[in-house]
Amino acid sequence: MGRDLTALFDPRSVAVVGASDDPAKYGHAVAAQALRAPDRRPVHLVNRRGGTVLGRTAATSLTAVGEPVDLVVISVPGAGFEAAVDEALACGAKAIVAITAGFAEAGPAGLARQRAVAARVRAAGAVLVGPNCLGIADNTTELYLASDRFAPGGVALLSQSGNLALELQLRGEPHGLGFSRFVSLGNQADVTLVDLVEDCSRHEATSAIAVYAEDFGDGRAFAAAAAAAGKPVVLLTAGRGTASARSARSHTGALTTSADVVAAACRDAGVELVRTPREMTVVLAGLAGPARPGAGVRTRGRRTAVFTDGGGHGAVAADAAEDAGLEVPQLGGPTQDRLRTVLWEQSSVANPVDLAGMGEQRPLSYADTVGALLDADEVDAVLMTGYFGGYAASEGGLGGGPAGGSVLAEGEARAAKEIVAHLASAAPKPLVLQSMYPGSPSCRVLAEAGVPVFAATEDAARALAAMTGRRSPVDATGVPPLPNPAPPLSDPGYHGVRALLDAAGVPFPAAREITDEAGLLAAAAEFDGPYVLKALHLLHKSDAGGVALRLADRDALLAAFREMHARLGAPAYSVEAMADLTDGIELIVGVNQDPRFGPIALVGLGGVLTESLRDVAFALAPVPARRAEALLRGLRSAALLDGVRGRPAVDVAAAAAVVERITTVAAAHPEIAELEVNPLLVRPHGALALDARAVLR
Amino acid sequence: MGRDLTALFDPRSVAVVGASDDPAKYGHAVAAQALRAPDRRPVHLVNRRGGTVLGRTAATSLTAVGEPVDLVVISVPGAGFEAAVDEALACGAKAIVAITAGFAEAGPAGLARQRAVAARVRAAGAVLVGPNCLGIADNTTELYLASDRFAPGGVALLSQSGNLALELQLRGEPHGLGFSRFVSLGNQADVTLVDLVEDCSRHEATSAIAVYAEDFGDGRAFAAAAAAAGKPVVLLTAGRGTASARSARSHTGALTTSADVVAAACRDAGVELVRTPREMTVVLAGLAGPARPGAGVRTRGRRTAVFTDGGGHGAVAADAAEDAGLEVPQLGGPTQDRLRTVLWEQSSVANPVDLAGMGEQRPLSYADTVGALLDADEVDAVLMTGYFGGYAASEGGLGGGPAGGSVLAEGEARAAKEIVAHLASAAPKPLVLQSMYPGSPSCRVLAEAGVPVFAATEDAARALAAMTGRRSPVDATGVPPLPNPAPPLSDPGYHGVRALLDAAGVPFPAAREITDEAGLLAAAAEFDGPYVLKALHLLHKSDAGGVALRLADRDALLAAFREMHARLGAPAYSVEAMADLTDGIELIVGVNQDPRFGPIALVGLGGVLTESLRDVAFALAPVPARRAEALLRGLRSAALLDGVRGRPAVDVAAAAAVVERITTVAAAHPEIAELEVNPLLVRPHGALALDARAVLR
Repeated sequence: MGRDLTALFDPRSVAVVGASDDPAKYGHAVAAQALRAPDRRPVHLVNRRGGTVLGRTAATSLTAVGEPVDLVVISVPGAGFEAAVDEALACGAKAIVAITAGFAEAGPAGLARQRAVAARVRAAGAVLVGPNCLGIADNTTELYLASDRFAPGGVALLSQSGNLALELQLRGEPHGLGFSRFVSLGNQADVTLVDLVEDCSRHEATSAIAVYAEDFGDGRAFAAAAAAAGKPVVLLTAGRGTASARSARSHTGALTTSADVVAAACRDAGVELVRTPREMTVVLAGLAGPARPGAGVRTRGRRTAVFTDGGGHGAVAADAAEDAGLEVPQLGGPTQDRLRTVLWEQSSVANPVDLAGMGEQRPLSYADTVGALLDADEVDAVLMTGYFGGYAASEGGLGGGPAGGSVLAEGEARAAKEIVAHLASAAPKPLVLQSMYPGSPSCRVLAEAGVPVFAATEDAARALAAMTGRRSPVDATGVPPLPNPAPPLSDPGYHGVRALLDAAGVPFPAAREITDEAGLLAAAAEFDGPYVLKALHLLHKSDAGGVALRLADRDALLAAFREMHARLGAPAYSVEAMADLTDGIELIVGVNQDPRFGPIALVGLGGVLTESLRDVAFALAPVPARRAEALLRGLRSAALLDGVRGRPAVDVAAAAAVVERITTVAAAHPEIAELEVNPLLVRPHGALALDARAVLR
Repeated sequence: MGRDLTALFDPRSVAVVGASDDPAKYGHAVAAQALRAPDRRPVHLVNRRGGTVLGRTAATSLTAVGEPVDLVVISVPGAGFEAAVDEALACGAKAIVAITAGFAEAGPAGLARQRAVAARVRAAGAVLVGPNCLGIADNTTELYLASDRFAPGGVALLSQSGNLALELQLRGEPHGLGFSRFVSLGNQADVTLVDLVEDCSRHEATSAIAVYAEDFGDGRAFAAAAAAAGKPVVLLTAGRGTASARSARSHTGALTTSADVVAAACRDAGVELVRTPREMTVVLAGLAGPARPGAGVRTRGRRTAVFTDGGGHGAVAADAAEDAGLEVPQLGGPTQDRLRTVLWEQSSVANPVDLAGMGEQRPLSYADTVGALLDADEVDAVLMTGYFGGYAASEGGLGGGPAGGSVLAEGEARAAKEIVAHLASAAPKPLVLQSMYPGSPSCRVLAEAGVPVFAATEDAARALAAMTGRRSPVDATGVPPLPNPAPPLSDPGYHGVRALLDAAGVPFPAAREITDEAGLLAAAAEFDGPYVLKALHLLHKSDAGGVALRLADRDALLAAFREMHARLGAPAYSVEAMADLTDGIELIVGVNQDPRFGPIALVGLGGVLTESLRDVAFALAPVPARRAEALLRGLRSAALLDGVRGRPAVDVAAAAAVVERITTVAAAHPEIAELEVNPLLVRPHGALALDARAVLR
């Protein structure tokens, strides 16, 4: 159900402690904002020197206010922070917004301080945002407790950076994007990103949740909350590169997570992961634009019709669409026939569709074409690109307009209205427009009807990709629940790990652990060769020459043992039946415990190629077999699995089933920091684990 | 030296044939533009009906003008086109701009027509642009023969699309980008893209050449001209995706080239390849901005200092910089110490450098920091990102400005001037700025000093990548000259191809072609086993089971021959010494004749992995050994070459030398459509070609 944040977003009364008349102080900006809605709820300004702040008498202390206060903003110097919090709790505060800085971001001592404060706040049954935050705002309850003004709208913005929040606000304006709420996350000492995503999911006025975060706190819980949000969650994060990871650590108390892990979690949870504020704005314009109350609803098809009035724009947009993960297939015969009836001879009715100048003669051909494309069963979405909008705009002297603008302008305006009519009547399919004249009257008609309009082709393609919910070859399948922890692994040695996996149904060749020649011979008597001999309790067995393969018979096994034992003197060895490698492919399956996202599975090409090709995929563990198969099929080298150069295809289903077992075991053993099966041999029939290792925390 | 296009760009007189008073006719727009500079040179309007056009008396024919005309624009219906050309030549025209459409883009008949016309034009010693073009303009000679107006500036725009040219013009304006020339390429029946790149290279007023092309004509000559241009060439092309390739073919007479080939040619020639008009504008803003006359000069270092006033922007920009191919390394101790002296304690002096709020207290800290970074030896370029510009802009009510704007605004303005001073005094290093307030007074100060200013982080990073000339792991090395054609290959069979390559110094194992058992035994007597037996004159030998490996001795060889011959009945076989594959890696080396770009080399991981991994690199052939080594080292799986899991490294230098020999042979044999050595076995010492094939045109 999540925590009750009513006192945070809709308090009965508010106090700003540290309110100031000095414009250079943040307490001044917050107080000024707080007073924007003086009639909605009591707003008390507190300044220990008293006097007047913004023309109001300031109380010298919160106690001096003389009545309970529901929400308290604290913007005082660090030294007085704890006292201010305690006084707020004493005055009955149920929510605290802590702007004061100098805590986790300043080092371990600060972390300890904020933990202690958070504990006291929770003990009092209150909630705290921050510290080291810039405040909050809720346009739906007229709550303004941050220095910035946010235009009202459907986006809930949860940000760890004030400047990026400001940029998103500035960028959203031309797209008519507004905000339902803004929360500056700060250090998340008490109220976390997860709490806020859960609350915004329940918040009716919020149509999309935009997050900028470097520190995910409980990343797995974030992913789960996002997957359950029922509305789009768009995440901007940093740390893909080495330098930004450095910086994120340096400028907040953040622990950044590997970009691979974040990307996998976002894919599994259906979160739209973006790289820049501009991309985030573009995606939000597609998912949460003004006229899109039901923005959360996305179509699933990616078959896109690209439609232009100028060939160059069509070709460039088709490339951009495919770059964005959309498909631009040939149109069906019936659709091409219908287009032929409305377009002229030199028009192209393939995909991209190209008016080839007809728009300039008969602007309504724009509408006829959009209508035909929206009606086509083989078309899931339409990307319109080029000059549309210019016939009217050229009147405005933007330059480049063709002669006779006024006649064309009227035709274009009619075309815009007809396109809107088609959108209303046809099956709901996303339409986005790239125009050289995005601010033109005709484009505004479409924008007001909920059609995202962009000046840049790549933006239109990116937005459409988000609206069709198809950026990854592997669909979101939600966040897998963690199994109950199993009894901790007693023997982390090779045979202990084998036993653990064997019990979970992971197939291994026959093997015996031995320490001397007697044991060796006994093992050899139990199963036939060829044999493998492995020295145990060595790191990197094979690099150390601790693995001998293809030992034809007992004598070869014995000879190998004597040589290896003389050389390595390992305490124990494993005698194993050598698997038939013919027509097999070696995979790697591993699970690491990520401090933020929990068990993360890795599957990929194994053996010698693992390091050199880095052809691996990540997913939240445990990984169901079906998902595992999709991950394997999504590898760059997936073609190998189907057999190349006359080799037989391998049993991917069997491999996927084993991946599910391995990752489920790992997820049930949080004490295992790393669990790896490499190689997992996949053959035309079945899969076999040839080696395994575990590293305890 | 290239063709003389003086009559095209600086004619002594101009005539517009097909000039019209009907605003719907293109001849109207062109005539109106032509008359913008009535005093520069005589401008004659021709309309077969006579009368007045734009208030001037129109001649009823070019002949009726009664004086020679240097340049003739032809915008008449297709039927009258040839006659108009002939009349123009008769009237002494030395240049023709053919707007009339309906030629190559309409099919083979049209292609034949335009070829015939072009031949007559060349025979007359004249030049022709088009047909199917939108005209030309030269702002440096006041020549306006296209419907659009182009702001004056340093960019020569050569475009196959009118609408894209218009978009580039609109996009350039906010960046102060202007154009020296515009040429609508049309069908390039006579004057080609190559002619124009060569002429613009010699054109002093042109500081960068921007090209939109789908049909490169002689692509290799284009690459060579671009490499020799001595100024940046930026190419926007389409056809990466399947759909755009379809469309390019459909809407012009274009023959599109594989994206891999275009990318390789651009990399070799040092052409900046872009994907969208927006990206092209960003790159041009970096390379050809208003205050950058010497824009062609680029630094070579990619070590970038990212500098922000807000941590989030720093982290996002650092990622964007690395995504764009730049490096964001730690700053050296001395630089960090110097920054410490000018910044406050909570600032981060790592990279990204983060003022952490100091800018709001002391705006000059922006300038101090930029100064320190420009002076740092370990810094090649600076990317500044975040709020800078906002302190003054917030006055303008853009919102989000901190309190006390006016004081800060003054400080910020001083900081901007100081940054400009640092730029003037320090060693020349590129500085780009991303600001939330790109139009602010402070940002304008920087822009006017030649600092590219962008609203989007990714744009700033992309521009900087272009300015540092480092987008590819492999540097441009120019376009290799083609060797003189060798005598055509007489025997395209396996042993004929082996002999050709062997003569060029490509090492092969011993081999003999045989047809019967006697020959087999004779061959076996010549060299020791193990042997390889290959059936010849079969496509896909190995798939057909036409290759037998590891034949230990003469008897095994004989047995294999009998079995294979009975099964395949091939006319001939090859008996070869089996190479020792231990510690070897199989590469593939191929050369294809591209209709546009000539011989194109492919190198990559060979053997079974070729198709499945597609880990290959392309380059213009012939490929010098040093370049070949760089290509191999740039492969995704290059780590394999250095030996993994304790394997020895292989002899990449030897492989590279063989690549040079193979690609040189192929380049000297244009009659060979495909030449392939697969596998090329690379061992710790030396490389050996294990198989080869050729396909004649």
